[in-house]
Amino acid sequence: MSKKVAVLVAGSWGTALASVLAANELDVVMWTRSDEQAAEINTQHTNTRYLPGAELSPRIRATSDMEAAVAGAKAVLIVAPSSAMRAVAHQFKPFYKPEMLIIHATKGFETESLKRMSTVISEELECEEGRIVVLSGPSHAEEVVKRCPTTVVVAALDKDSAEAVQGLFMNAYFRVYTNRDMLGVELAGAFKNIIALGAGMSDGLQFGDNAKAALLTRGLAEITRIGVEMGANPLTFAGLAGIGDLVVTATSQHSRNWRAGSMLGQGQKLDDVLKSMGMVVEGIRTTQAAYFISQKYGVQMPIADQLYHVLFQNRQPRDAVEALMGRDPKTEMEVMKLETWEQWHS
Amino acid sequence: MSKKVAVLVAGSWGTALASVLAANELDVVMWTRSDEQAAEINTQHTNTRYLPGAELSPRIRATSDMEAAVAGAKAVLIVAPSSAMRAVAHQFKPFYKPEMLIIHATKGFETESLKRMSTVISEELECEEGRIVVLSGPSHAEEVVKRCPTTVVVAALDKDSAEAVQGLFMNAYFRVYTNRDMLGVELAGAFKNIIALGAGMSDGLQFGDNAKAALLTRGLAEITRIGVEMGANPLTFAGLAGIGDLVVTATSQHSRNWRAGSMLGQGQKLDDVLKSMGMVVEGIRTTQAAYFISQKYGVQMPIADQLYHVLFQNRQPRDAVEALMGRDPKTEMEVMKLETWEQWHS
Repeated sequence: MSKKVAVLVAGSWGTALASVLAANELDVVMWTRSDEQAAEINTQHTNTRYLPGAELSPRIRATSDMEAAVAGAKAVLIVAPSSAMRAVAHQFKPFYKPEMLIIHATKGFETESLKRMSTVISEELECEEGRIVVLSGPSHAEEVVKRCPTTVVVAALDKDSAEAVQGLFMNAYFRVYTNRDMLGVELAGAFKNIIALGAGMSDGLQFGDNAKAALLTRGLAEITRIGVEMGANPLTFAGLAGIGDLVVTATSQHSRNWRAGSMLGQGQKLDDVLKSMGMVVEGIRTTQAAYFISQKYGVQMPIADQLYHVLFQNRQPRDAVEALMGRDPKTEMEVMKLETWEQWHS
Repeated sequence: MSKKVAVLVAGSWGTALASVLAANELDVVMWTRSDEQAAEINTQHTNTRYLPGAELSPRIRATSDMEAAVAGAKAVLIVAPSSAMRAVAHQFKPFYKPEMLIIHATKGFETESLKRMSTVISEELECEEGRIVVLSGPSHAEEVVKRCPTTVVVAALDKDSAEAVQGLFMNAYFRVYTNRDMLGVELAGAFKNIIALGAGMSDGLQFGDNAKAALLTRGLAEITRIGVEMGANPLTFAGLAGIGDLVVTATSQHSRNWRAGSMLGQGQKLDDVLKSMGMVVEGIRTTQAAYFISQKYGVQMPIADQLYHVLFQNRQPRDAVEALMGRDPKTEMEVMKLETWEQWHS
């Protein structure tokens, strides 16, 4: 059987995951957007722009020819930015074979349509959504490539596909759990960026550890609430793709979402923050998405709601926190519909 | 109606909670173990040994006379160390009146008996366990006394008692949620110290953010698993007393548990760690407790298990992590018994 895995788009996370596959003695081919980047990977075994300082295995080869990249691969891992996912999947389509295992490791929704990444991929490849596997969890690329102990979750409706991906990636420093709640894993991965943004804002306001823990926990509660309403398992949000990823994002200065939030908390305006970041801040778009989704489903998301007002309606961060603290007394626990439990735990 | 609340034992957390009650214009009397400490609180309005730098409200008075401390109080808040809880409750018993609201804010089990704090209190006061309220959540005393935004949870079997306590404490910087799963809140508060110890060990080994997030998330999964087996609601562990408190404990160098773990990770021996800490490290005793409880209930707690071997059987921390990473492939999700969901969410 082929031992080849293709990785579409040689960004930092794609490169880190490629290094895990290479450590497991698979043949990895990365598709790059430029010949220069491919040449650097093939001859220098580095990817300086996206993962500076990392030395890559010679097992990792690269090409800017999509057809050559995926030909004969047993699995194709797509790690494009969410905004580029549809275009990349579209470009891959002519070379897609139904026997290929399709994995994605991209967090976030498609802008405008608010579709999940697995939906975008299955639409473009015209394949069953059930056979697409998502990989998510708390994982800085910089640490994975240094072989620091890391855990992730892979989820698919099809159990065999999820277990096959578990088998591809798992090794002594990269531990992979399966989960059959793909919807929950994708929603948690996208929504958690809102809360990371909020945690950054709290830190920017110098509100302390108690406030940040409050934001993470009550943020988790509200993204769980909307997730359950959309059909996910609440315990997925307490897992690696939810609280795990949230902790690593919200406590790390590497995180763009945390950093953008922190700048807002210090009183900078959104336009200036975006200008100085120079790249996409996923949490900002997701906050906008959550604002509309929560209204559509009639689910309260007080933190996302306040962030929306700070980002787009000039509310002062301090006033937003005051509004959150001053809400009516609540119970911590939402009573979940019994059908939700039955669906996931019978 | 009386506006008096008594606080038994003027430690750092008791003093911080007293400051919240005073901010809410209640009359607070703290019981101290020494006349000197009472005099300092009454005349200097400080409690230097336990909460250095804090300036206390003159509404907070103190006495070393237990009877005077609790006489006429509408509520009594007990915040003794877990090892002293039975003795304090016993000393309080002669002055206890059934109309008093009894609140405790102590984490951990009674050593030897492994009883929860509410059990110890109800045994000593000979009162119904249902009327005792526990207060828990992510809350450094140093921040609360500075009025940094903080959220906590209060839980009791009796809803009215929980809501009464919510009413006593809630204000613009101290937000209180209720929960009817008192068992879960107490178990989460105790078991989370094990995971904080493990997170410290990971940091001591310099394993990085991914490893720490893995420990927190998979640690949460295993303390949830044992909690559910004992009758708790799994979502309580995803709440303020669980993941909330875990985040604040495991990411703060103020935490004794984190600090002890970190020293162990750096290769120090348990005896030396205990000597240099000079005080109780709750997580060490709780690890021992969990080791026996998990066997009794037949529930796997791999992280607690490895920590037990590091603490008491000279296993190297690095070997413990290797053993954790090298376990068989698993699914992330335990299938919960449907009765559990029905109990909490119907």
